[in-house]
Formats: sequence, C-alpha cells, structure tokens
Amino acid sequence: MLLIGGSRSALGLLAVRRACCLSRATHSSPHALEYKPIKKVMVANRGEIAIRVFRACTELGIRTVAVYSEQDTGQMHRQKADEAYLIGKGLPPVAAYLDIPDIIKVAKENDVDAIHPGYGFLSERSDFAQACADVGVRFIGPSPEVVRQMGDKVEARALAIRAGVPVVPGTDGPITCLSEAQEFSKTYGFPIIFKAAYGGGGRGMRVVKEYEELEENYQRAHSEALAAFGNGALFVEKFIERPRHIEVQILGDKYGNVIHLYERDCSIQRRHQKVVEIAPAVQLDPHLRDRLTADSVNLARQVGYENAGTVEFLVDKHGRHYFIEVNSRLQVEHTVTEQITDVDLVHAQLRVCEGRSLPELGLKQDNIRINGFAIQCRVTTEDPARGFQPDTGRLEVFRSGEGMGIRLDSASAFQGAVISPHYDSLLVKVIASGKDLPAAAAKMHRALAEFRVRGVKVRSTAAQNKARRRPLCAIKARQVIYPFMMNLALIKGILNTVLMFCRVR
Amino acid sequence: MLLIGGSRSALGLLAVRRACCLSRATHSSPHALEYKPIKKVMVANRGEIAIRVFRACTELGIRTVAVYSEQDTGQMHRQKADEAYLIGKGLPPVAAYLDIPDIIKVAKENDVDAIHPGYGFLSERSDFAQACADVGVRFIGPSPEVVRQMGDKVEARALAIRAGVPVVPGTDGPITCLSEAQEFSKTYGFPIIFKAAYGGGGRGMRVVKEYEELEENYQRAHSEALAAFGNGALFVEKFIERPRHIEVQILGDKYGNVIHLYERDCSIQRRHQKVVEIAPAVQLDPHLRDRLTADSVNLARQVGYENAGTVEFLVDKHGRHYFIEVNSRLQVEHTVTEQITDVDLVHAQLRVCEGRSLPELGLKQDNIRINGFAIQCRVTTEDPARGFQPDTGRLEVFRSGEGMGIRLDSASAFQGAVISPHYDSLLVKVIASGKDLPAAAAKMHRALAEFRVRGVKVRSTAAQNKARRRPLCAIKARQVIYPFMMNLALIKGILNTVLMFCRVR
Repeated sequence: MLLIGGSRSALGLLAVRRACCLSRATHSSPHALEYKPIKKVMVANRGEIAIRVFRACTELGIRTVAVYSEQDTGQMHRQKADEAYLIGKGLPPVAAYLDIPDIIKVAKENDVDAIHPGYGFLSERSDFAQACADVGVRFIGPSPEVVRQMGDKVEARALAIRAGVPVVPGTDGPITCLSEAQEFSKTYGFPIIFKAAYGGGGRGMRVVKEYEELEENYQRAHSEALAAFGNGALFVEKFIERPRHIEVQILGDKYGNVIHLYERDCSIQRRHQKVVEIAPAVQLDPHLRDRLTADSVNLARQVGYENAGTVEFLVDKHGRHYFIEVNSRLQVEHTVTEQITDVDLVHAQLRVCEGRSLPELGLKQDNIRINGFAIQCRVTTEDPARGFQPDTGRLEVFRSGEGMGIRLDSASAFQGAVISPHYDSLLVKVIASGKDLPAAAAKMHRALAEFRVRGVKVRSTAAQNKARRRPLCAIKARQVIYPFMMNLALIKGILNTVLMFCRVR
Repeated sequence: MLLIGGSRSALGLLAVRRACCLSRATHSSPHALEYKPIKKVMVANRGEIAIRVFRACTELGIRTVAVYSEQDTGQMHRQKADEAYLIGKGLPPVAAYLDIPDIIKVAKENDVDAIHPGYGFLSERSDFAQACADVGVRFIGPSPEVVRQMGDKVEARALAIRAGVPVVPGTDGPITCLSEAQEFSKTYGFPIIFKAAYGGGGRGMRVVKEYEELEENYQRAHSEALAAFGNGALFVEKFIERPRHIEVQILGDKYGNVIHLYERDCSIQRRHQKVVEIAPAVQLDPHLRDRLTADSVNLARQVGYENAGTVEFLVDKHGRHYFIEVNSRLQVEHTVTEQITDVDLVHAQLRVCEGRSLPELGLKQDNIRINGFAIQCRVTTEDPARGFQPDTGRLEVFRSGEGMGIRLDSASAFQGAVISPHYDSLLVKVIASGKDLPAAAAKMHRALAEFRVRGVKVRSTAAQNKARRRPLCAIKARQVIYPFMMNLALIKGILNTVLMFCRVR
C-alpha cells in the first residue's frame, strides 16, 4: 500500500501522515484495514543482496522471483530463487538491472506482489518506486516521494534543518559554476568539499585544501558527477577533518511509528568506500548516541519515513555531529545491526510492507537492545598490486572461515564461481560477532586468516599451466584489516585504525 | 596442572579440593600461583571438532598442532593447524587416534603445552588424561580421576545418589549373568533397559518389553558391549518410556567454582544417536529447569569437576527427572549452548586449563543468561535408501546455506572433499539461531533447503559418466527434520516431533 503519489509535496505528505497517526491513535487496531499479505517477492537486484532477501522471504513462506541480465545467466542469485526471469535483453550489464519497464513487465506477468530493490541499481530511484505503485506492485521501501526527497541531497538537507538536526555548513542549493564555490570558500575558509548533488558512493566527491586547488577540483568533481549521474550539479560544504562516520539504522511503519536500531561506525573507508563496519560504535559517548538516535528518529518522523533506512552523520573531534544524508534503502552493512540487535531487518521490511505495525512485530524502542559487538569486512576481488583494480576470472580454490561467531553473506563465493567484470567486486561479506569488541575482532581475525582464494584470469590461455596461475583475489578487506588485526591489543588496534583512516582521508 | 594423580580415591580428592577452596577463599587472588599460560595446543582428534578447537586457539593467540592418521593425510583438519604430524603409522584408521604413546611422543617432541581430546576417541579415557599428566602435558578436561569416575557408569551413578540427585531405579552394580537381570525384572517389572557399563553412544543398549525377550536381548547387549568396549558388563535399569533427553552444560575451574550454562534438549534421536539438538529446552517448566541445573552443579561440585562437562538426564511424562550420566568432555552439540549464552565453551576450556578462575573470565552464574533459541542439525553422509548406511566418495557439488542466524561447523564439506569410510559420517553441523524457536526453526528450514550435495562413489570407475552419478549425501538430518519443518506451525511441529521420536524409540 502506498499512501501518497509522487506529485504531492513534502509538506502535504507530512500533514496527511500526521493526521493519520493522530486519528488512528484512538483505535485499538488502527491498521487492520491496511494489512495485505505478500505472497511473492521479486528482487530487482543481483548477487549477495538478492540472496539475502530471498532467504528472508523463504523463512517467512514467501515465494521468490529473481531477475538476471544476459551476463548473469550463470550467477548464483538466479538459482537461489523459486523463479528466475531474464531482463534487459540486449542491454549492457548494468543497464539491464535499470530497465524499469522490463522489470515491471516481468513482475506483472508473474503475479509478483512486491519488489525489493536491494542496494544500488534502482534502490533509490523514486521513478522506480512510482512505477511499481502505478501498476499495483508494492515497493519494499519508503514512498516514492520520500525516496525522491532523500535522494535529493539539497532537499534532504533542508528537511534536516527544518527538523532541527545539525548539518555541515554548506550552500543552500547545488551550485553550477565555479564562482559560487569561490564565494563559499571566502565565507567559510578551507578545507571544503564538493559532492555530487544527485549521486553518492564517493563519485564526484573532492576535498579542496587551499584556494589554488579550487578550480581544478571543481572541474573534476563536476565532470565526474555528470558522467556518473547525468547531472553535474555540486553541493559545497565545509570539510570536517578526521570525522567519524556514524550512521543510525531506522525502521518506520505505515502508522507513523519510527524506531532506531542504534548506530554503526563506518569510518574505515578507502576512497570514500566503506571497507569495515562496526556496530555499535566503539567508545561512543552515551549522550552523543542519544542525540544521534533522537535526531534520526525525528527526521524520519518528519518526512513520514516508512520501512528501513539509514541516517548518516559525521562526528568531529569535538564530538559534534552533522547530518549528511539519508539512504532510503537497506545498506550493505545492515548485517552488523542485525547481529547486535537480533532483529532481522529484511523480515521487518517485508512485514512493514505488508502493513504490519512495528509494535505488532515486537519492535518497540524499549525492546531494542544492543547485545555485544559485530564487525563486517567486505572481501572483494581486487588486486592490491594494481591499485585495487577489480580482478576477474574463475575461482579455482575457495575456502572461507566458518564456525562460532561468523556469518557469511555471499553469492559467487565457491569453487568454480565465475567473477564477472560487469558488476561490483564484492565477493563475500564476513560478519563476526562477539560479546565485546575484542571477542568479535578475534573471531574476524581468525576467519579471515582461514580464507584461501585462488583463481586464474579468464583471458589466460593456459589455465592449467601452474606457472601462469596467479592470485585472483587479493582480498581487499584482508589487506586492509590485517595489519592492525595482527598488531592488536585488539580494541586499541581497531580504534587506532579508525583514527588512522580518518587521518589518511 | 593436574591436582591429583590417578591413584587417589574419589573421596580423598573431594576432601583435598574442598580444603583448597575453603583456604583459598580468604585470599584476594587465590589462584595467581596456579596460572600458567598455554602456548601450544594439540588436538588429539580429527574432523570438525579438531577445527573447532583450532579456531578457538587461533582466536586466543595459541599455536595449534594437528595429528592425523595415514588415512587422513588429505583431510582438512591437518591444513587448519599451524603444525601437523602423522600418528599411528601402520595402524588401522581408528587405532591411530587411540595410539596414546605415539600421541604423547609427538606432543613432547613438539613442545605441546596442552592436549584437547575433542569428543570420541580418547576424550573419556582416564589413562590418556593420566598419560598426559605423567609427562607434564596438560589435558584439557577434568582430572584423570574424575574422567575415570564419570566413565564408569556404576560409580557415576553411586556418586549421583550420594549427591542427592535422583537416578533411574536400577542395579547397584554391573551385572554379568542373565539371572541378575531376571531378578531385577521381577522386582521392578517391565520395560527395562540394558546398557553397556563401560561405553556409550547406543552400543550395547537394548530395551526389553516383556519376559520372553529377556534372554535374547541380554545376550545381544552383552556381545555388543564386549565387541565395542572390550567389556561385556551391563547395567540394568527401569526403562523410562517416552522421556525427554535433557542435558545440562557445566563448567568448573581449579578453585571449586562450578556454573551451569542451562540445558539442551536432545530428545530427537535415531537409534539412540542424537540428530537434532535444541537449546534451551522448549516449554520446560522453570521449576524443573531449576532442579536440573542445581542437581548438575551439585554433582559437579561433589566430584571436584574441572573444565567443561555435561550432565545428562531423562525427564518422564510426569516431569520427574533422572540422572543418567556425565560426559566429561565437549559434546558435539555444545554449539547450541554457545549460541544462546554467547559463551565460547572452547575458550573457557582453554582458559580454565591455564588456571584462570571462572569469575576472572566473567563466568559468574548471574552473568549467564539465555538469549533466544538455537537448533543444531547433524548433516551426515548416510544413505536413507540403504538404512542410513554411511556413504563415501568425493563431493562433486557442495553448496550450503549461510547468512543471518546460520553457523556452520564442518571439516570436509566442500567441493572436491573426499568422504572416507573410516570414520564418523558427520559432514557438517548446521546451527540456526533466532530470538525465539520459530525464528530459529525458520532459519534452519531455509538453510537446509539451500543445501546441494552430490557425489560419486569412490569405487565408481566412471566418475565422469553422468549416468552413473548418484546422490552421495542423503542428508540424514534433512530427512529427519524436513517433514515436520515443512508441515509446520513451527514450534508445534518441533514439539510434535520431539514427542514422535520419544514414541518411536
């Protein structure tokens, strides 16, 4: 059920949602009319996240539908679903998963009740959420209007300001010429940062430390944003030095209830890409935690946020926090929150989409407690010898570390799997849990040490020639996490690395 | 450190241990003198349990040593250790792992500080524990004398009676002729059960329902026990019909501290072998839980129990419990207790063996809390079409189910692994956890549904001939758990199955 159409304004939406909540609060079973079970879910995505969602569906007795591009014919996510259909015939690899008309057509032809967008691809595209609504297929995520607002960093920022959430000093709107950037730097001084107004993931992002670098960086950021997102508009902000990157997981339902599931620390990044994520954040001042979670819930309530989402903040060295953005979808690192709260976020997404209220699902704020620590490492097929370029080929050997405290979320991580050059280089997410951070870190350290990944390049003409065999994998996460994991005094090492990464950036 | 020699009597031991505790209780750091770190651990075992222990050692920074028989040269447990040595050269497969002199020799030659016996093989052999002590290698388990007492079911029973723990009505000692069995049946009536006095695992165990069956069953049980354990002595007991099999995990240290980690329900068995284990026990009366755990701790304290152990009980339909035995080692199903308590039992075993006290490890009774439910299924390479005979060969395909709530403990579970005919048919332990039993059962159901195991017989001359390929696996656990998992109303189904199994036995 989608409460609002894409044409309604944000404030209109707010008014409607709040009125709903108020009037319904007096009913004993306010939402009975809106509950409609989901029987069949399509995941408009691939790889580990498609399988993650299929697993949750299977656990809830929901039938699953995979879609796959021509390039993904042999991929595992296809086999893990009850049904699988080709999409984007004749299109390039990524374009196939962006082919909204074809995806909607397959969904309609096969009686799909709801579509889960995963992360990436169409997950933050309000036109996709709207296209689903238009044909009566439920989009497992917020309403199209909320997706649109959150995807527009300028509007999201304005909403945060209106909700009383602190933001990084920056331009009110996107800038489209160099002179605006020059003016901003005169007011606030350096360092400043450019960000793509209509994208994320580090593309179009550039830090400028002094006036001499301003013009060149502006041009580069503009070009990158234009190439990646089709729009070169940039956002300029004061650059927070050595921040911690802390994000809060939120969950909302159709009845105005919003809760948080505490925070994740995603400060360990390489080129603005998260590598290691930890929940909860280590040695976080409890008052700061309260402010972060309260601000997140407030903001989500303000916009009538439904389903799972993440509110991202920077925390500076003085312990001040600044809102940066809302990701209106499931995150790659949602796993660590699941481990410490025992809440299956995908189950919750599906149930909320069916029309269940959070209290009905047992998800009251008072019931959400942090139990231990969890760490996620993203193991990717990148080659550190070639500047972490994605490497491709067939996995000749694949052994992982399992056992107590280890959760693995993967798709193509098995002997014989073909690593395609067409998509993200994520091979497997290793998630370690323990009663405290040293325990979780020891499990992670041990599990990563057990990994054995070897392969040959697809283009190698002598795959069986041992002399030409070379490591395919070059596990990025291992490369990154290893040095400090080895030199532990575990908790100290992790903290040092978090700080080190913040310094390096 | 071993407090006592094999020659001391149980009561002598008791007196010594208690005196120690009392005198030490007044010191602020009573055990400082006994702490001696372990630097290198050998596991005198194979397969998944060897790897389980290696993982714990690696996590604690302890170097690991594997031993392997000639038949196990290519097995995974060898590769997961820092060092690996051949034992029992020229001996049959099982005999190699029972070759105490060779194992001790390898341990001494390679500066091993402590030996973990795993389960099976030498794990409950007091002569092995004593042989370790004699050469100054620590045995990770109770003292030789306690291992001996617990291994002797008659003595264990007498100790239970002395500790005020209820036991099943039965003969005071082992019987060695039919007439003693006849006399017992006249006093207590039928059904009765024969059990091997010097063994376990279902061998030598026979239920007799009426007088006419008595002689034949006595002879068979006697022969089985003689063949399996080298001693045909039997124990006769009143047979408890449709019992639940509940066992309590205990942990003791060198200072007289004993705690319990709640119970596991192991009622789902096939031919007296556990198949599915659940922790905590479903719908267990809290008062009964209190009695079970209190009796377990009392008994363990009485004998000065050190390290990890399990006290096994039968619970009849009236909720009465009867002590059956103590397993003075780690159990196959220790995993479910770890999942619900967040206590790594192997870490605790290692630390206790080093001389740490339980309070020092944070293991105070008040800190041990049950968090959710966990289920373990033992996936074995058995062929249901041939009466669950172990099947052997090479795994051509192996895919398991991973993801949230799933822990896998395995050794030979990967594509290309060779399943040998020489040892236990356990392929992988699948452990599912969730906030309640339906959640855990849904995860288990989903994970088992993802399994794909296929292989060819070693003796097949046409391994590549597709026509001759046949399923190797025939997953036992799946066969057992599947029907009821499918017909759920999950929690109800499990309860029904528990009852069904109790009826079938």
